[in-house]
Amino acid sequence: MNDDRTGRIAVIFVSIRNDANPIGYGRAAAAMDALAAQQPGYRGVDSAREAGGDSAREACGMGITISYWADDAAAIAWRDHPEHTAIRDHGRSLWYDSYSVNVSRIERAYDWTRP
Amino acid sequence: MNDDRTGRIAVIFVSIRNDANPIGYGRAAAAMDALAAQQPGYRGVDSAREAGGDSAREACGMGITISYWADDAAAIAWRDHPEHTAIRDHGRSLWYDSYSVNVSRIERAYDWTRP
Repeated sequence: MNDDRTGRIAVIFVSIRNDANPIGYGRAAAAMDALAAQQPGYRGVDSAREAGGDSAREACGMGITISYWADDAAAIAWRDHPEHTAIRDHGRSLWYDSYSVNVSRIERAYDWTRP
Repeated sequence: MNDDRTGRIAVIFVSIRNDANPIGYGRAAAAMDALAAQQPGYRGVDSAREAGGDSAREACGMGITISYWADDAAAIAWRDHPEHTAIRDHGRSLWYDSYSVNVSRIERAYDWTRP
């Protein structure tokens, strides 16, 4: 058990992407990851996206990104960061069909690695 | 904002799979999804896995599965379910290289759908 994660904030972002502008999306996603990592209280990110059923549209499908923050103030500061706000507006106008956000607080944590 | 998710438990499971026995893994994952959905307090699941870099090994790579529960008692009951425990042991012996679990409580929730 790894209790030093207890109390951190996990911002769970679940999105459905369309097939618009995959290159622009990829660039923006990488830029946001890099910018997030510079913010106070940043504690990491996990991200995975299903490949689309059609190999020519692999960028589509359901994606999950979870960013981790030292506390709620850090998570809120990132939510309200001007560049993050701007790219979110861009995502709504262009890349996403829908998304949901769950802001949660970690109560227990475990890790396992193959011995 | 969709505050009816507030207070629910989100069990965040982040795993790295190897390429062992992908068919057996797929069957077990589907069986576990179906069994989880029958448990008291189940409130849904979100799941995504990165395609591997090698198209012949698409099953590999990082995956994120989040199961949602009405309360902590429901999440713990699922953790301790005998079939779930057995399949987890199987996953450690066979399919996973590593994983981490964060059990978190939802404090805020938002949704957006393209108008």
